[in-house]
Amino acid sequence: MAPLAFLAEEDIREIRRRFGTPVFVYDQESLEARAREVLDFPNAYGLTARYAMKALPTAAVVRILNRAGLHVDASSGYEVERAIRAGVSPDQIQLTAQRTPLNLRSLVKQGVIFNACSLQQLRHYGELFPGQTVTVRINPGLGSGHSKKTNVGGPSASFGIWHEYLDEVLAIARACDLKISSMHTHIGSGSDPEVWEHCAMISLRIAARLPEVEVLSLGGGFKVGRMAGETSTDLNRIGMHVIEAFRAFRAEHGRRLRLEVEPGTFLVANAGALICSVIDCVDTGKNGYDFLKVDAGMTELLRISLYGAQHPIVTVPAQPETRELSEYLIAGHCCESGDVLTPAPGDPEGLKPRLLAEARTGDLLAVGGSGAYCSGMASKNYNSFPEAAEVLRTPDGTLHLIRKRQTLDQITANEVIPDVLDTGRG
Amino acid sequence: MAPLAFLAEEDIREIRRRFGTPVFVYDQESLEARAREVLDFPNAYGLTARYAMKALPTAAVVRILNRAGLHVDASSGYEVERAIRAGVSPDQIQLTAQRTPLNLRSLVKQGVIFNACSLQQLRHYGELFPGQTVTVRINPGLGSGHSKKTNVGGPSASFGIWHEYLDEVLAIARACDLKISSMHTHIGSGSDPEVWEHCAMISLRIAARLPEVEVLSLGGGFKVGRMAGETSTDLNRIGMHVIEAFRAFRAEHGRRLRLEVEPGTFLVANAGALICSVIDCVDTGKNGYDFLKVDAGMTELLRISLYGAQHPIVTVPAQPETRELSEYLIAGHCCESGDVLTPAPGDPEGLKPRLLAEARTGDLLAVGGSGAYCSGMASKNYNSFPEAAEVLRTPDGTLHLIRKRQTLDQITANEVIPDVLDTGRG
Repeated sequence: MAPLAFLAEEDIREIRRRFGTPVFVYDQESLEARAREVLDFPNAYGLTARYAMKALPTAAVVRILNRAGLHVDASSGYEVERAIRAGVSPDQIQLTAQRTPLNLRSLVKQGVIFNACSLQQLRHYGELFPGQTVTVRINPGLGSGHSKKTNVGGPSASFGIWHEYLDEVLAIARACDLKISSMHTHIGSGSDPEVWEHCAMISLRIAARLPEVEVLSLGGGFKVGRMAGETSTDLNRIGMHVIEAFRAFRAEHGRRLRLEVEPGTFLVANAGALICSVIDCVDTGKNGYDFLKVDAGMTELLRISLYGAQHPIVTVPAQPETRELSEYLIAGHCCESGDVLTPAPGDPEGLKPRLLAEARTGDLLAVGGSGAYCSGMASKNYNSFPEAAEVLRTPDGTLHLIRKRQTLDQITANEVIPDVLDTGRG
Repeated sequence: MAPLAFLAEEDIREIRRRFGTPVFVYDQESLEARAREVLDFPNAYGLTARYAMKALPTAAVVRILNRAGLHVDASSGYEVERAIRAGVSPDQIQLTAQRTPLNLRSLVKQGVIFNACSLQQLRHYGELFPGQTVTVRINPGLGSGHSKKTNVGGPSASFGIWHEYLDEVLAIARACDLKISSMHTHIGSGSDPEVWEHCAMISLRIAARLPEVEVLSLGGGFKVGRMAGETSTDLNRIGMHVIEAFRAFRAEHGRRLRLEVEPGTFLVANAGALICSVIDCVDTGKNGYDFLKVDAGMTELLRISLYGAQHPIVTVPAQPETRELSEYLIAGHCCESGDVLTPAPGDPEGLKPRLLAEARTGDLLAVGGSGAYCSGMASKNYNSFPEAAEVLRTPDGTLHLIRKRQTLDQITANEVIPDVLDTGRG
């Protein structure tokens, strides 16, 4: 079953013994295999593949993917710094952000590539670096995603420069003597391959109107199947269609465009699992439900509460033994009714019992598909629970701690009780 | 307007100058006024009011509400420790948790009150403390909340002991010689007053069957209006109905029940605002939208993305000046299309433009109603953004930092890059 693709039951028991729960486990071999697939993306005139590190910004994972040949896309100035600290060369880092960091000048001087995501950002960059090259992110006017929340193209999305404003883009470039050498589109996470290819075609038509563009980034958003029966995007198939389009572009416009892709989920989603412990088993009567309660929840797997996302879950008995199957709702450890691991598909407010091997207090659950947007996008410290630990499984099968569990002292380290509350009327 | 109830525009500019953005601001006078309202809750035979501190666990706020006369309800063992560090006497802290802390014995020995939320928890407590008194949380079989996600009663909620299992409760109490002196129900956050009162009546019927119960906690969940035109629960009105019911209970069962209530949102929601800066203004063409982008988002106000919650928002120009009104969508700083501050009411996937004073890059926005479940329940560090700073406004109008802005070093402090990634095949 999916969550156990890289972990045997005994590994999971060992992980709890050594590191406690809740704990994320990532598999280096899986990460490197996905990196190879991405680096094999069919292309006509060269390829740069970037890891969209917001999916899982933990330093060890960033380093593994960078060593495997991937460059990085960072979603904030803070993330750029994290990538540099993880050992990524600044000239392999592109910044694609809603928010321009205050130290943009210093980052760019170190070699970081700036992807201007609005007319204001482009103007700001042009003022700081007249005469330089720059990348622009365009909103091509259509989007895709597994839910509206992950659709980042189209008129209801604020990401990138609206495609009707190319004249303004060119005017700013002229005024600041900028060379727009690269163009970027990204329309959403979990896109349908057909929509992705359609967007590639539209992006090429836009690139035709930016005459100095030599690099076209089509973003990421490749759909990944987490549950049994769900399929992942066939990169080879969509890539072959894109090759043809790039060749046709060259025939028509005389430019050999280098391709960039920028996956996040595709690289890390199924390379990670969350291991948690069953802490209680309750039920709500004959016409109600059987619940398992675990020592994790939206503090680790917010995307389940946020999108109604479906993750494979398996029971791992505390000691090896065979169990019957049973239907359960699974509740997280937060005092919040939305903190469930078994929402109805696509409906975060609905519930759908899951058929699992019978579980008892003290057993473990492994939640698969927990690499992307899990430890990186969690409601950390809700109910004052500490950030979970993270562990890496290296190819020889050994386990290495790559993030220590947070302590309560760390959670409260920045709190200050003003003296005034201890004196006078406080 | 609501977000400015305790802040003048000039205060908001000063807050940015002194503390930067994004920053939460809490008003001590508002906190104390709400505390007085709660402590005035009508009651027949005595009242204990507890602050459900998961709503906003920052130490200074916990201390203010405790000094004002409120006891505390904690949602985890970690939260108990935070309350103790904030200066709350252990015997004023009740633990109502999905997860029993490992150090339960030590906490209870210090005086912390344990609220058994499942049969297993009750049994566990009975084994540790035979012959002692205990509180039980009962799921009365119905729930209420502003969305299904905040409805914590009824058969689809795992919180508390299902009301049909009172015989089991009594059997465990007998076996461990426990005295069940207190009973607790809490059916959801943002409850309708009618449902809340109905639940109170059902809870009394259940308490009748637990003969040693002397204290009945009806939880919290009082509805709070954040937006203009929304009303807040009239505590006096619902309290008067409950008084009558407690008197009737005494007449029938000969017991004078002490009342407990346990509000979180009611105490802090409108005592807090988030101050953020407008960092960009973009649009998606004639048939599209005008967007304001701000330097905050789901990293501070997750409940907007999670529930489609509505918060009042006002523009504060960087310098005092009068502005026309205009319609905007407001986007957060994360690269995530669901990171919006203007969802359609009750539909986190929909969007609804908001009429605001015209805003420009460099202006400020104040987001009202941001005290409850905002800094305490946020997708911290998503896109690597640091946890926001928090400021307290004391009654003399001075501003005090009560949480320093997190640093990048703190975000990555627990990360470890194993040596094996630097040698061999890593």
